[in-house]
Amino acid sequence: MRLLLPAGTTETALIDGISAAGAAPELMEHTPSADVEILEYGEPVMSPVTPVSPNGCPTPAAVTRAVREVVGFDASVIDAGLTQSTAAPTVDLDAGPGGDIRESVAVPDAKATFDRAYDYGASLPDDRLVIGETVPGGTTTALGVLTALGEPAGVSSSLPENPIERKRRVVDEALAASDLEPGDCENAPLEAIEAVGDPVQPTVTGIAAGALESGTEVTLAGGTQMIAVAALLRHAGIDAPLSIATTSFVADEQGSQLADACERFDCELTVTDPGFDERDHVAMARYCAGEAKEGVAMGGALSLVPEGRMGEVRDRLEAVCARLGIESEDAGEPGAENDETGSEPAEGSRGP
Amino acid sequence: MRLLLPAGTTETALIDGISAAGAAPELMEHTPSADVEILEYGEPVMSPVTPVSPNGCPTPAAVTRAVREVVGFDASVIDAGLTQSTAAPTVDLDAGPGGDIRESVAVPDAKATFDRAYDYGASLPDDRLVIGETVPGGTTTALGVLTALGEPAGVSSSLPENPIERKRRVVDEALAASDLEPGDCENAPLEAIEAVGDPVQPTVTGIAAGALESGTEVTLAGGTQMIAVAALLRHAGIDAPLSIATTSFVADEQGSQLADACERFDCELTVTDPGFDERDHVAMARYCAGEAKEGVAMGGALSLVPEGRMGEVRDRLEAVCARLGIESEDAGEPGAENDETGSEPAEGSRGP
Repeated sequence: MRLLLPAGTTETALIDGISAAGAAPELMEHTPSADVEILEYGEPVMSPVTPVSPNGCPTPAAVTRAVREVVGFDASVIDAGLTQSTAAPTVDLDAGPGGDIRESVAVPDAKATFDRAYDYGASLPDDRLVIGETVPGGTTTALGVLTALGEPAGVSSSLPENPIERKRRVVDEALAASDLEPGDCENAPLEAIEAVGDPVQPTVTGIAAGALESGTEVTLAGGTQMIAVAALLRHAGIDAPLSIATTSFVADEQGSQLADACERFDCELTVTDPGFDERDHVAMARYCAGEAKEGVAMGGALSLVPEGRMGEVRDRLEAVCARLGIESEDAGEPGAENDETGSEPAEGSRGP
Repeated sequence: MRLLLPAGTTETALIDGISAAGAAPELMEHTPSADVEILEYGEPVMSPVTPVSPNGCPTPAAVTRAVREVVGFDASVIDAGLTQSTAAPTVDLDAGPGGDIRESVAVPDAKATFDRAYDYGASLPDDRLVIGETVPGGTTTALGVLTALGEPAGVSSSLPENPIERKRRVVDEALAASDLEPGDCENAPLEAIEAVGDPVQPTVTGIAAGALESGTEVTLAGGTQMIAVAALLRHAGIDAPLSIATTSFVADEQGSQLADACERFDCELTVTDPGFDERDHVAMARYCAGEAKEGVAMGGALSLVPEGRMGEVRDRLEAVCARLGIESEDAGEPGAENDETGSEPAEGSRGP
C-alpha cells in the first residue's frame, strides 16, 4: 500500500471567501507546500507558514501525519502545480499551477498532465494506492468540473458555514467565461478540467486511471473533491471498481448526498470517525465544530487505522499539534510527552 | 533517524574506464535516477535502465532497499544534479549536473548548492541523519577534492580492479586545468569542489554541516567518497563528532588506509559485513568478488540492521534482485517467493 499526495495550487483559491486553507489569501499558496513537509517530516521545515486557522484548527496534514506515525505507511508526494518551493521530496510530472476558473482556460496543460500521471500510475509496483490531494480552492474547482460534466453536485467546505451559493456563482461565471453550459463536457473530462478545474484533478485522475487499468486497487482519499475525481474517471470511460474514503466530518455535512454520489459513480464509500469528540483539545474541537473536515488524504489515512488504535492517533495528533505550536490548555502534557519522539513514524524506523 | 540520499551526475563519469556504475557510458547518467526509484519503490519504475552489471551485479541501491524492507527507515532523496528524470520524489535544492573535472570549472554552483543544502540540513527535525550518495564517477571526484585539499588519498572503486593510477592521471590533469597544485585548496573546501569535485559533494557536505551545527547526529554512509566529505567538513572548520559507516567490501580493499583516514578526520568508523559469502546467489557472489562494493548508502543501511537479522536482509535482497531481473540458478525460488510481497517494506505499512 502506498499513499500518494498530489499537491498543487489554483488562483481560484484567491477568490474572496471560498477557502479556509490558509489564514490570508497571500499565504494560501504556501499551504500545500507546508502540508507536504508535515506529511514527510512531521512539521513544517522550510515553509514560512504553518497551516493553522486563527481558531487553532490545524491543516488535515497534521491528522494524516499522526496516522502515519502510528500505523506507518509509504507516502509519495507529487508536484501537481505548486507555486512555492517545499523541502519535501516531490515527484515532478511537470504540472503547472492552475489559473482562476473565471478565465477562459484554467488548466492549459490538463491533457499533458493527465498523460504523464497515467504513465506514472500505471508504472507503480504497489498492489494498492490511496490517493489524496492538497489544493486550496479545490472544492470550488470540484464543483466546476461536476457542473461541466452535468453531474448533480454538492460540495463540501473547509469553513463551518459552507459558502456553497458563492461557489455556484463563481462556477456559473467560470462556465460562461469558457462558453460552456452545465453538461457541455459530458464524457469529456479533460475539457472540463481545462476549462473550470485545477491541476490536481488531471494528476489524481491520471494516476488513478493508469493504476486501475494496470490492475492496482485504488482508494480516493477525500470528500467531494474525490467525488469529482470519481466522476471524471467514469466520464473517461474507466469502469474499474473504485472506493472513496473520507471523514465523518464530510459525511455529517453532506448527509445522503455523499452516499448518493458514490452510488451514481459506483464507488464503495468508507467513512471514518476519528473520535475527536472524546478529547478536550482545541484542534480536535475545531474539527468537531466543522472546520477543515477533510483534505491531505485525511479520510484515507484514518481508514488505515486498525480497530482499537484510534486513541493512539489522537495521542499522536496532540504531539503533532504541539510541533505546530498548538497547545491545548488541557492537553499540554501528553502533547509535550509524545513530542519527545520527534517526527519519527511509529514503526521500527530508528534502526538500532 | 532519516536516511538522506543526494543523487547527481558528473561528466567525469564518462571518462573511459573509471566507473562501473552503468553498463555503457551513455546509460550511466540514468543510474542515479534508477537508484532512487529502487530506494523509493523497490524497483525501477520509469527509468529506461536497470543498474545491473553484465556479470549480474546489481546496484548497491538493491541492498539499501533490501535493508529498508527489513528494518524500515524514513528516506528522502535530494536532487543533487540529476540529468535524467526520475519517478522518485526528490528534494529540489536547485543543484545542476557537474562537468568534467578536466575542465577549468567542474561545479560552478558549488557555493550556492552548499548554502541551500546547509539550510535544509539545519532545518530537519530528525535527531539523526544517515547521508549517502549516488553519483557515477564519484570516487574520481573524491580523489580530486582530497588531492586539492592536500590530503593523502586512496580511493575505492566499483570495479574489482581499481584503476587508481588512471584516476590519479585524470586528477592531475583536472588540477592543472584549474591552475591548482595539490594542497592549494587547504581550508577552502568549496574551491576544491568547484574546481575538481562533483555536485553531490556540496550537497552532502552542506546538509551534514547544517545538521551538525544544529545538534543533529550525522553518519556519512559510504566509503572513500564519504572520507572526502569528512575531509571537506574538517577543512570547512566543522569539528563536531562525525561517523562513517561503510561495507566490509570497501574495508577489505582499503585495508589500513580507511582507518587511518577516519583517524585523520576524527571520524568514528563502522564497517558492516552483510555475510554475502553465506549465499550461493550471483548478486552476492559479485559483491564478494569485489564488484560495486558500496554506494547508495549501502554501508549506512547495513549498519542499521539489528544483530541476527542479516539473514532476512539476504532473503529480501534475493527478492529485490528478482524484481531487477537477476535470478540466481540456485536461488530462483526464494526470490520468487519473497517477491510476492512486492515492494512493500516489512514493517506494518500495509494498513489493515
